[in-house]
Parts: sequence; C-alpha cells; structure tokens
Amino acid sequence: MRVALMIGSLREGSYNARVAHAMTRLAPAEVQFAISRIDDLPPYNQDDDKDQAPPVRRLKEEIAGADGVMFATPEYNRSVPGVLKNAIDHASRPYGLGAWAGKPAGILGVSVGAIGTATAQQHLRNILAYLDMPTLGQPEVFLQWKDGLVDEGGNIGEDSREFLGDWINKFLAWVRLHPRR
Amino acid sequence: MRVALMIGSLREGSYNARVAHAMTRLAPAEVQFAISRIDDLPPYNQDDDKDQAPPVRRLKEEIAGADGVMFATPEYNRSVPGVLKNAIDHASRPYGLGAWAGKPAGILGVSVGAIGTATAQQHLRNILAYLDMPTLGQPEVFLQWKDGLVDEGGNIGEDSREFLGDWINKFLAWVRLHPRR
Amino acid sequence: MRVALMIGSLREGSYNARVAHAMTRLAPAEVQFAISRIDDLPPYNQDDDKDQAPPVRRLKEEIAGADGVMFATPEYNRSVPGVLKNAIDHASRPYGLGAWAGKPAGILGVSVGAIGTATAQQHLRNILAYLDMPTLGQPEVFLQWKDGLVDEGGNIGEDSREFLGDWINKFLAWVRLHPRR
Amino acid sequence: MRVALMIGSLREGSYNARVAHAMTRLAPAEVQFAISRIDDLPPYNQDDDKDQAPPVRRLKEEIAGADGVMFATPEYNRSVPGVLKNAIDHASRPYGLGAWAGKPAGILGVSVGAIGTATAQQHLRNILAYLDMPTLGQPEVFLQWKDGLVDEGGNIGEDSREFLGDWINKFLAWVRLHPRR
Repeated sequence: MRVALMIGSLREGSYNARVAHAMTRLAPAEVQFAISRIDDLPPYNQDDDKDQAPPVRRLKEEIAGADGVMFATPEYNRSVPGVLKNAIDHASRPYGLGAWAGKPAGILGVSVGAIGTATAQQHLRNILAYLDMPTLGQPEVFLQWKDGLVDEGGNIGEDSREFLGDWINKFLAWVRLHPRR
Repeated sequence: MRVALMIGSLREGSYNARVAHAMTRLAPAEVQFAISRIDDLPPYNQDDDKDQAPPVRRLKEEIAGADGVMFATPEYNRSVPGVLKNAIDHASRPYGLGAWAGKPAGILGVSVGAIGTATAQQHLRNILAYLDMPTLGQPEVFLQWKDGLVDEGGNIGEDSREFLGDWINKFLAWVRLHPRR
Repeated sequence: MRVALMIGSLREGSYNARVAHAMTRLAPAEVQFAISRIDDLPPYNQDDDKDQAPPVRRLKEEIAGADGVMFATPEYNRSVPGVLKNAIDHASRPYGLGAWAGKPAGILGVSVGAIGTATAQQHLRNILAYLDMPTLGQPEVFLQWKDGLVDEGGNIGEDSREFLGDWINKFLAWVRLHPRR
Repeated sequence: MRVALMIGSLREGSYNARVAHAMTRLAPAEVQFAISRIDDLPPYNQDDDKDQAPPVRRLKEEIAGADGVMFATPEYNRSVPGVLKNAIDHASRPYGLGAWAGKPAGILGVSVGAIGTATAQQHLRNILAYLDMPTLGQPEVFLQWKDGLVDEGGNIGEDSREFLGDWINKFLAWVRLHPRR
C-alpha cells in the first residue's frame, strides 16, 4: 500500500512534517509513505492547464499512484495554508483530469496554539468532499505541539503513541475499504 | 481614498479582474483603486518571516497604504484559491506585524457556475474575521459570468449596473465608517 | 436495506420533502425509506440527557435501525436549519451513546435561489464528519426548485431523472460499502 | 445602550450563561444587558411566517429594541446548537421583515474541551454575515471552562478579567461605531 503525504508547512523542522514522519513508523512495514513535494510548484494559473509544469505533473503522478493521502497541516489564519491549497488546486486540474477523485484521505494537524488547527480542518474537509475523497471522520487529530510529542529518536512520544497508533490503524483500514478507481 | 484590489485568479482575461476593474468605474473619481499583484509572491515559508522577499514587502506596503480592500475571487474546489490565500498568509506575517488588521473589506466573486463562489466566500469571511478586517455583509455578490456582464467598453453591463453600483456605494460607505488604525 | 430520511423543513409541501420522496421511487424496491419525524422534538437541553423524551428515543431508534441516512434540507441563513440541527444534536447524545456514528450519509438540497443550499451543505458536512458519518462526496446535489422538478404524479421530472437516479445508485452503493457497526 | 444576550445552551447552570452574565458586570452601568429567552420558541416552520407565535414576536421586539447583540454559545457537533440556530431562523423571518439586519454583534464561547467552540464560531460568523450583522473580529473568545473562570460571587475570575474586560470595551465601542438603522 502506498500513501502520499501532503505537508502544509514548508519550513524546515515543520512540526507537521515531524509528526507525520514519526506516525509513519507506527504503520506496518508493508505500507510505503512518501512526502509529495509542493514547495516548487508555481502559483496556479488556469492558462497553464493545457501545459502543466513538470512539478505539477510529478505531483499528479504521485497522487495517481497512491492508494490514500494523508494530510498533515498547520492552520494559517483559521484556514488551510495557501501553499497547500495551491497544490490541491494544481492536482485537481484540468477539469475532469484531476488526480484526487476517489482517493481516501486522513487529516491531522499540529499547532502551537490550543485550538490545534480545528478550523483549518473544517475548510479542508469541505475541499476534500468536493474532490470526492472519502475522508476519515473520527478520531479527529488536533495536536498541540509540546516537548516530547516527537522524541529525539524521531518517534511519537509515549503520551500520544496509543492515540496516534490507533489513528494510523483506522486510517489504513479506511484506505483499504475504499476501492481504487 | 485608496482601495487595494485583490484578484484571486492569475489567468489573463480573468472574469474577476474584468468585473472588478469595471466596478471601479462606478465609484466617484476621488477613489483610487489599485490591483495588488500576487503572481510573483513566493510560496509562503515561515523561515522567511525575518527577511520577507521584496514582492511580499511591496504587498504589505500597498495594503498598509490602503483605506480598504476589495476582494474579487473565483472559487477553486469550494474554497479560496491557493494563490490568493498565499498572498493573505504572506501579508499577515510576521505575527503582530501583519498588514491586514483593521482594514475594511468587501468581497465579490464571479464564476461560470450557478452557485457563484458562495462557498469560497464563506471561507474567505472566516479568514478576514480572524484578520480583524470588518467585512461588508450585504449585499452578497455571487456573479455568474455571462455575455454582457462587462461590455466591450469595459463597463458593467446595463443589467447589473444598478446592483453593482449600489454595492460599490455601500462598500465605500463601509470603508469610511471604520476608522483607520 | 433501510434508509432514514431527514428533512430539514417542516412546512407542508416542503420542496425538500417532495424531492426526497420522489427520489425514493428511483431506488430498487428492496430499499425501504422512512422519514424520521423531527417536528415534535423538544429544544435540546443537556439537563435532559439522562432521561431523553419519547420523541428523542424514537428518533434514535430509527437511526440505529437504519443502514444509511439521507438528508434533504433547505438552507436557512446560509447554514443548516435550526430544526434539523436540533434533531442532530438530540440523537448525538448522551456523549458516547449517540445514534449517528458510522452511518453512511448522503446530502441533497432544494431551494428557490440559484446557489441552491451549497453553503448549508458545507456546514452539514462538517457536522457529519464530526459524527463519524461517512458522507458521499460527489455528485453534489444543489437543486433549484422549478415547475416539473417533481411532476404531478410525484415522480422526478424527466430533466433531472437521470442525474438524480445516478445519485441514488451511488448513494446506495456508498451505504453498502460501509460496514454496519 | 441596550444589548441583547443570546445564550446557546438551555441547561441550568450553563457555563456560557454564567460567563456572559459575569462579563456584563465588567461593562459601564449605563449599558443594559438582557437575556433573550429562546427555550419557549416553537420549531421554525415557514407556514407560520404570516402569523408568528407570541414568543417569536417577543424575541423580534427584543432584538429590534437592542443596539447590539452578544452571542455566548457552546459548540454542539462542531457547529451552532440547533436551539440557537432555531432562534436565529425565527427572528430572521418573514423575508425582508427580520430583526437582525444591521445589529452589531460579538461572539464568545465556553466549552469544556480545548478547542473551545472555535468551529461553532466559524459557522456562526457565516450566518451573521448573511444577516448583515457587523461582527467584531478580534479578539476571539474561545474559553475553556475551569474552576475560577467565574468566581463564587458571580464575577469573572482574576486570570481572565483583563482579557474579558478588554473584549467588553471593544465590543461596546464596536456597537457605538455602527449606526442604528
């Protein structure tokens, strides 16, 4: 099974990237996770639909080849980061030839604040519903970053391991449930 | 009075750009409208907060110098286009030094479909509320593109002139009502 | 297969009730549809969680006995009608003993306006995601009421029969896909 | 100045009612706050628009007589409680004769969970924007209930007094800014 990881933050040392990466270690070895790069995508311009740039084609191929998509994203201004939405917009085009339809999805978010990306996730769920991506409902994953969430070895810390391991299992079962189109 | 125009689509001949531009002609001559360019902004990366790129600084200066902001945007995947959100994210940073707070805003959207950007506008309103931008509530402007909405001379067509002229007047009164910070 | 119908409008002759009822005729005969009454529910009050009123218990039993739930709702003030949300709130309680979790859902909406309940459906999707109800993404059903949408015999009119029949088929397949908990 | 208080929870001892009441003590004496009762409203039915029930007429008169509206609400299933939405729906009707248009509003929410009603408030902001109610953006008030938030004397506890006193002042200035229609 192959899962594409979409990370909503571009900064080095992104909490979302670190947590997402650590969570992949909680999955069985036969599941392959690969981060889909989004930092080199151009700003989406509909005039380019007929001739999508190489990084856009790469992203679309990665999504097309995946059995499921895992989103790990911060919240910017109570919504989805523009850079992540730009990637979603690119891979949804041209109309009828997007890469997302039917791919099962899961969402998690890490933030330094207490409300933990809840409002960004509401918007993202609206977007994924439109893209016809069945998205795992529960458990919701609204994480507040704190020391030890990811330990020095790059593993999920003890306090969260059971909860996030359970999430990974449910997400993988969700991916398996939905037939590949 | 100066109004910054944020256009959510980068394509040449964008319906939103054409409608927004035509609407500026319905305003009194003493109001200056200027489109804020967003196509040359890099993808937002928090690591750059300490040293924002020249196009980011330019955008922030334009917003800081404006009395109000008018958003004209399509809907992409039932939400705000990534390119527009990326611009919003840039000019909101670094924390506490963003350009948006207190700027009165108005929203309009043009699409080829019947629901006319209504769902994108819901998300945009959430974002602007967080940015502390008082945003005109009514009338909502959900436009469906059709021949004659903007005539060959670049003016709003007769069918929509009264409605959109009324909107411009209400928007300008809204801008005047809210004191500049 | 049994499907519970939740209708968001209480008025006699509700467009949503008429369309939903007509759509049930497009389904195979072995599928049983039953409207869940919501007009006699009290206003939700958490103090009553320990002793839910008979109409609340009835609603919960109907949902518990259903294989899937079909929502047909107007949009009130750009969101879900209060009466429908009140029913959802009731059947979600007490905490851990709600009736909704795991029930596959589909959403449609009829309105007299052009944007056709799109914004209400965005909010409803957020609610159903939280309730862990897998909800069909596409096709979206934003219907504008017009003569002939339901004919005099109570059937879906010719113009919409193919689209809505396809939706019913996809919805029923969606219900079958998700295992009953 | 008169402010109508809309409380989203009906339970006795509601945290939102307690916090809202305590906050009114932080306001100058000349501001009158009055809770608008919503527990005796019938479920909204459009057929009743021509002959609204006495509790509906009472609510509409209270809103019409207020200079501003303060919403204090829990979050139910990641959205606005049905009982509060039902009240909003009633007082928005009949079309063109609603009570809400133009009333300045403020929103706060208390919950036992960490994300503190953030997602309910997103939906409520969409609703109030449609109703043309200018709504205070910042500061957002997402309160997590804990001992001492309201002290035994019914006052806001020391830890939150400065923050909530500042909010009340900003809310009252916001009400004064927006001309009564």
